[in-house]
Amino acid sequence: MAQLIADRRDVDFVLFEQMEAGELSKNKKFAEFDKKTIDLIVTEARNLAIKEILPTQKPGDEGCRLENGKVMVPESFHKINKLYNEGEWLAMTDAPEWGGQGMPKLVSLAANEYFHGANAAFMLYHSLSHGAAKLIETFGTDKQKEQVLEKMYSGKWSGTMLLTEAEAGSDLGALTTTAKRNDDGTYSITGSKIFISGGEQDMVENIIHPTLARIEGAPEGSRGISLFMVPKFRINNDGSIGQFNDVVCTGIEEKMGLHGNATCSLTLGSKGQCIGTLLGAENKGLNAMFQMMNEARQFVGLEGFAVSTSAYMYALNYARERIQSKNIMKPKEGSVAIIQHPDVRRQLMTMKAYVDGMRSLIYYTGRCYDRMALAQSDEEKKKISGIIEVLTPIVKGYISDRALDVTSHAVQVYGGYGYIKEYPVEQLMRDCRIFMIYEGTNGIQAMDMLGRKLGMNNGKTFMDFLGEIRTGINNSKEIPAISELSQKVDDVFNKVSEVALTLGKKAMSEKVECAYAFAHPFLEVIGDLTMSWMLLWRATVAAPKLEKLAGTLNPKDIIAKASQNKEAAFYDGQLKTAQFFIKTILPITMGKLNSIETTDGAAVEMLDASFGSK
Amino acid sequence: MAQLIADRRDVDFVLFEQMEAGELSKNKKFAEFDKKTIDLIVTEARNLAIKEILPTQKPGDEGCRLENGKVMVPESFHKINKLYNEGEWLAMTDAPEWGGQGMPKLVSLAANEYFHGANAAFMLYHSLSHGAAKLIETFGTDKQKEQVLEKMYSGKWSGTMLLTEAEAGSDLGALTTTAKRNDDGTYSITGSKIFISGGEQDMVENIIHPTLARIEGAPEGSRGISLFMVPKFRINNDGSIGQFNDVVCTGIEEKMGLHGNATCSLTLGSKGQCIGTLLGAENKGLNAMFQMMNEARQFVGLEGFAVSTSAYMYALNYARERIQSKNIMKPKEGSVAIIQHPDVRRQLMTMKAYVDGMRSLIYYTGRCYDRMALAQSDEEKKKISGIIEVLTPIVKGYISDRALDVTSHAVQVYGGYGYIKEYPVEQLMRDCRIFMIYEGTNGIQAMDMLGRKLGMNNGKTFMDFLGEIRTGINNSKEIPAISELSQKVDDVFNKVSEVALTLGKKAMSEKVECAYAFAHPFLEVIGDLTMSWMLLWRATVAAPKLEKLAGTLNPKDIIAKASQNKEAAFYDGQLKTAQFFIKTILPITMGKLNSIETTDGAAVEMLDASFGSK
Repeated sequence: MAQLIADRRDVDFVLFEQMEAGELSKNKKFAEFDKKTIDLIVTEARNLAIKEILPTQKPGDEGCRLENGKVMVPESFHKINKLYNEGEWLAMTDAPEWGGQGMPKLVSLAANEYFHGANAAFMLYHSLSHGAAKLIETFGTDKQKEQVLEKMYSGKWSGTMLLTEAEAGSDLGALTTTAKRNDDGTYSITGSKIFISGGEQDMVENIIHPTLARIEGAPEGSRGISLFMVPKFRINNDGSIGQFNDVVCTGIEEKMGLHGNATCSLTLGSKGQCIGTLLGAENKGLNAMFQMMNEARQFVGLEGFAVSTSAYMYALNYARERIQSKNIMKPKEGSVAIIQHPDVRRQLMTMKAYVDGMRSLIYYTGRCYDRMALAQSDEEKKKISGIIEVLTPIVKGYISDRALDVTSHAVQVYGGYGYIKEYPVEQLMRDCRIFMIYEGTNGIQAMDMLGRKLGMNNGKTFMDFLGEIRTGINNSKEIPAISELSQKVDDVFNKVSEVALTLGKKAMSEKVECAYAFAHPFLEVIGDLTMSWMLLWRATVAAPKLEKLAGTLNPKDIIAKASQNKEAAFYDGQLKTAQFFIKTILPITMGKLNSIETTDGAAVEMLDASFGSK
Repeated sequence: MAQLIADRRDVDFVLFEQMEAGELSKNKKFAEFDKKTIDLIVTEARNLAIKEILPTQKPGDEGCRLENGKVMVPESFHKINKLYNEGEWLAMTDAPEWGGQGMPKLVSLAANEYFHGANAAFMLYHSLSHGAAKLIETFGTDKQKEQVLEKMYSGKWSGTMLLTEAEAGSDLGALTTTAKRNDDGTYSITGSKIFISGGEQDMVENIIHPTLARIEGAPEGSRGISLFMVPKFRINNDGSIGQFNDVVCTGIEEKMGLHGNATCSLTLGSKGQCIGTLLGAENKGLNAMFQMMNEARQFVGLEGFAVSTSAYMYALNYARERIQSKNIMKPKEGSVAIIQHPDVRRQLMTMKAYVDGMRSLIYYTGRCYDRMALAQSDEEKKKISGIIEVLTPIVKGYISDRALDVTSHAVQVYGGYGYIKEYPVEQLMRDCRIFMIYEGTNGIQAMDMLGRKLGMNNGKTFMDFLGEIRTGINNSKEIPAISELSQKVDDVFNKVSEVALTLGKKAMSEKVECAYAFAHPFLEVIGDLTMSWMLLWRATVAAPKLEKLAGTLNPKDIIAKASQNKEAAFYDGQLKTAQFFIKTILPITMGKLNSIETTDGAAVEMLDASFGSK
């Protein structure tokens, strides 16, 4: 049977050969996660994803229903939700204290890749639940944690994020939901929130809403925002479910895609009966929320990647099966599978390069978390934490941008069939368009990179990130067969470093607006560089193995060998994909770098009126 | 009121200042179309589009219904269809002999921009009708023309294209619909067609289907395909409607977008009762159909452009109204309209550059048709016809690719609101995705450019096209204020010429597959060059007018003047947009050109197995 969602061989390659997951069990903390166990986990996740979750993807596209304030998720979600919870998949990486499995993050990502690729709309309920639980685990009181954590991590209850309001989207400082202190130390919450994914749904007994609101008398703007834990149903002292907490779903959005996930408008306290408890310190709500946001942003990157790998597998399988037109080199041999046509190959190769690069990047980020968990010193921990900070906008912004490209290529490879609902790829394209927007638009990710991450710790953090790439390039230089590729990545690396410096300076000069008009292109070139690093790294791992299999790295002999040997074909695919990206895409990155370096001011200097008549 | 669909000032600029439509009436053929008349036509089209057609856009998204073989278009389409037909808009450019208005193509495009921008799904019924009528006008017998042309051009009857079959999409040579000659010279048609836009619908009395089929005993492949005129209802000798012609709609597709247009599966002759008449010569059906295809392809470009300009106007208006976050330069002044944020400006500017460039390109193509109609010699006619041939894949392929980018930017500017159906832009993005596919995928457009257009007439045709750009660059050199921009376009022009030569050679060498793997990037750089030419041309027209208004071309003085003077602001917008595209986008084009020049073979040399496990 064709591989669905993801190519398991590639998953294993990144896990064990590139990221060396097999080494994790050498650490006491992860002792039980040896290669065999990891294999089992991935296999189990894959089975659940392909056999149970994937069949709900298309019916889920029909959407949720709202009736009398109750949201019904697609019928098929109930069964997979039960299976997902029974498998204890939500708290893979969390502390056993709260019912978690203490799994390495790296391993959990391989499982999550299959789950999100099978049905991103369904998984969104869970990833937000996880983020909400993590937030409470980090900032909650013992009582709050006792009340909700086990239930949330087990999937019995769910969690959300109540941030956005109609006039407060990207600018959370503008929000107007209020919290009035009650005599018993609780708060009465009043306000309206929009765009709340899973804000109301019928797969769980209770929903816990971490909610941003302004305590009466608090300072204006973002300095006066606090975070509250607001349940859908109040929680009795014995932990059982109490009375309705006046959180009313007033509507669900009709969207372009991701229909299986209910996007709710919620009104809190319209009857004065919505009670919340403070989460963390007064007026420090945004800080706390941003911690959760980082996890959420990485989840968005994961979603983008998972949908992309799924789209790639569909397109690849289709291209191997669909017979149409003749091979340009052998016109007399009749019609052939479209994978033989150069333009289809260009598209498949582009998709593969991004999907492979995304997988490596996502898993690498997971490995960073594991490195942090295993770090011997605070200094090391801080360094890795900084690298994760730099990676976050790349994972969220760059990957979700590319996900649209990859899914659009999938539609194109299918031709007319790609546009119709009978085939799966148009849904993937619609679903993934929101990833560029939610949890901070990609414009905001780009500003985060230029305005915060570049200058963090006086630039040391960004240098640490570049240091990781430098190490990757240096390692690749030891393999003569890829020295040309290595040099080209090195050239882009140097140019990016240069441009980072000059753009960073401009961002702190009077040319700040011009600099920020290039924040997104800047994020894009950092993303391109990161992709090339990941693909070069793959080639560095693959080349010696290929040489061993083929007895040579002579291209013709390799092709001969690879034609008969699946492993050789796989490794040669690593080399070819790196070659494609580095020789075909990186020259364009160089062009982008030249453009950023110029930092032309036209877009900023143009008068509003010049954009068009009113 | 905000400008909807298109900025009328810019429409007029391209019509009268760039393309000099006011000069057309100097020719006897177009004597009645003076500036005042053209103004009136555009105003009338704009009124109909904005007041009547635009309000049907969103309800049309709910789609068509199929019941017992009958297709019901969205209810709201009936009224606008009546108004559209009453205004005689379909046959604007056609011969008065068949009820046409004999209007210059250039002028018709300004009207069509508004119509297609108001509702592309509705207009698709009409553009296909027009193409079908044109085909019959060109290849039909006198009897066939008498039977259908007036009725089709008046919109009383519609027309389609019956090409695609399940196993014959991009490769029409594989089609299996058959035609059996009857004793009376007619043919009995049997087969099944899919993806037929407007294949069945209830706005018209009859539908004329130009149909590709294979006469029994004809040669295999594309050499044995003939074209037939197949009506839905047979036509009696007196022109009245006769019996049902056994063309049965068996299904309509559920699609990503463009729901208002019914995409039908048709079965012909399942009861042996489908009669067609030969259109043109036996076995020459593909040639004939390709004539119509050229018109259809240009219509797709027009659709892509029209949806883009509509998306841009929405995004611009929204960016001017939506208040969110502070101005980075004036953080103390409170929240501002998002048009003030650099990343939003970058996106608006990108959209404007493409939309402006597209408008100029589309109108320029129209002007080429008018030049051809007015040409004094066959030689001149042939030359311009050749330029149109080169423009066709750019108009279809490049514009529809960019339309996805532009509409996606519009979604992004709207943020979360962009993703929901309450706002108009997500529909535009869904609608326009098909433009990259139908009437020949953009991969096929790219192959057409590299494989046919580049070498046409031993390269003379492509040189003629480049010659037009060269003239534009030379004209711009006379304006010192834009000499830097002029030089940069010149550099890209030279590089494109160079790469065209080397890639063209490779396409005829043993590296043919590698070359074709770069056909799409090659089309893209030609498109980029074309955009920069159009924008430079605009700047060439605008600069002297701006200088006259402001008394100077000193940037500061211009901004001062433009702040108070709408015309100065408009002209300065032309200069700034050209500057943006040429200094920010063209460096990336240079990168693409370097990539194409390398023509790396990785995508072609990769083994099928290396793309992923089976």
